[in-house]
Amino acid sequence: MKLKITFLGTSAAVPTIKRSLPAIAFQWKGKIMLFDAGEGVQRQMLKSGLSILRVKQIFITHSHGDHVLGVFGLLHTMAMLGRESLLEIYAPRDVIELITSVIKYTGRDSAFKVILKQVHEGIIFEGEDYLVKAFKVDHGTLEAYGYVFEETKALGKFDVKKAEKLGIPKGPLWKMLQEGKDIVLENGRIIRWREVVVPPKHKVKVVYTGDTKPLEKTIEYSKDATVLIHDSTFDHTLSKEAHEQGHSTSLDAALIAKKANVKSLFLTHISARYESEKPLLEKAVEIFKNTYVAQDFMSVWVF
Amino acid sequence: MKLKITFLGTSAAVPTIKRSLPAIAFQWKGKIMLFDAGEGVQRQMLKSGLSILRVKQIFITHSHGDHVLGVFGLLHTMAMLGRESLLEIYAPRDVIELITSVIKYTGRDSAFKVILKQVHEGIIFEGEDYLVKAFKVDHGTLEAYGYVFEETKALGKFDVKKAEKLGIPKGPLWKMLQEGKDIVLENGRIIRWREVVVPPKHKVKVVYTGDTKPLEKTIEYSKDATVLIHDSTFDHTLSKEAHEQGHSTSLDAALIAKKANVKSLFLTHISARYESEKPLLEKAVEIFKNTYVAQDFMSVWVF
Repeated sequence: MKLKITFLGTSAAVPTIKRSLPAIAFQWKGKIMLFDAGEGVQRQMLKSGLSILRVKQIFITHSHGDHVLGVFGLLHTMAMLGRESLLEIYAPRDVIELITSVIKYTGRDSAFKVILKQVHEGIIFEGEDYLVKAFKVDHGTLEAYGYVFEETKALGKFDVKKAEKLGIPKGPLWKMLQEGKDIVLENGRIIRWREVVVPPKHKVKVVYTGDTKPLEKTIEYSKDATVLIHDSTFDHTLSKEAHEQGHSTSLDAALIAKKANVKSLFLTHISARYESEKPLLEKAVEIFKNTYVAQDFMSVWVF
Repeated sequence: MKLKITFLGTSAAVPTIKRSLPAIAFQWKGKIMLFDAGEGVQRQMLKSGLSILRVKQIFITHSHGDHVLGVFGLLHTMAMLGRESLLEIYAPRDVIELITSVIKYTGRDSAFKVILKQVHEGIIFEGEDYLVKAFKVDHGTLEAYGYVFEETKALGKFDVKKAEKLGIPKGPLWKMLQEGKDIVLENGRIIRWREVVVPPKHKVKVVYTGDTKPLEKTIEYSKDATVLIHDSTFDHTLSKEAHEQGHSTSLDAALIAKKANVKSLFLTHISARYESEKPLLEKAVEIFKNTYVAQDFMSVWVF
């Protein structure tokens, strides 16, 4: 397993008994990233067995209360638990102003630092083995973004026998080859990494749209993604209301998933009106088979 | 039943799987008052079957995040649900500043008005049949209050037969007598209300301390109260830590309950370290028998 995605809140605007407010956790090699942090996210994490002290980065899509009000409780509890490591929060400008003003009042003495980074379209974070891109979406007048998580250093399958046969000394050279780098042996012989490594079949790529109307741009950014998590506030019979309010229907999401050739589609930001998944799924699965309605505490393992 | 008290969150500082952050609902003749509003209060209300649209007044004890961060989600959802009626929030000055600054960012178009009232020691609200007093408590350097809810117009038992015998015409005069007012009949005869009304045995009085060290003042304000809800962050073996952090132990609370001659004591603001109620109860019930550890979703009916 490379990445585990856990839905912590899948409601739209207001919580329901079954669905908490928007928040998604990505677990990647021991660290946790949150995408949106609606009210209650810290307790949803507790219930999921996710440590809030492992959260390294939070990405907020836009300033509507249902997507951001859980940040303050997270910061409060992190301080109470004596967190010392740095926390990065990526968000549009208005969210950064909001967080800044709240920290002023509710902050407790604490050793840990929060770095607030204003988001723009393009690559906003580049780590050792993954990057995060933001893309502007259309959710009415306020600034709103979708995010793309992309693995950058997928390791292939290393052929030990062949490497030994070629006389490549065990150690750092093996690692370089596995990371996709060609090497030169002491005897001058060049070894191409593909000679001893079966390249990875795919790199993990997960797209989360936040709240948005259906957009051509989402198709571009989601091209061949492993997982697409798309706004699906309403079912297809309510597309007028959805678009007027800057949202998508489940059918919109399915059409985008199909055009982008993603592997699987998860519908989230589900209006409180739906007690059953049926109206959301019926048209969507006709268009795109691998469509699922996200539920709180549902986890998706990406290999 | 006159008053129903529902504990919506009974943890201290950080939530646990079983306990959400501090919040208590009072249901009084169709309206709801909240005392503190920690993160997640709106969803706790949903799960308790309490309508957030019926909340008329919110009383916040102090500005620590665990007591106040649920206000924003409540306001957000009230706006989303199209609330039009007025909401009053009573709080210390720093909480009012915090709420004002958050509303600026997360506010949605909404017809309903929020009135923010700065709290001082003394009577802060006087309604038709109850009043609310605030009293300053000691929770370290920041401004913190406890609150007293007092019934002001308890109705006695009306003796219909005697009223008819005395020739008192049915109608408004009966109501006046039952409300404790003396009347004069058309024939000039004075009727004292006690002639036809058995006075109520007691008036409802509930005290909630918020976070505080044990105080003499709490005893004064809790005199003969029906219910005392007291800070009980730790058990008696940790009284040094409790007092240093501006909190009380369960034993402190029991001693105050006894001296104030209250009817029952509910311990709340329970540290996450306690999985069992036992260490909190053992000494406390020796001092004050009617001691209970509050739990999330526990309701207390006051008759």
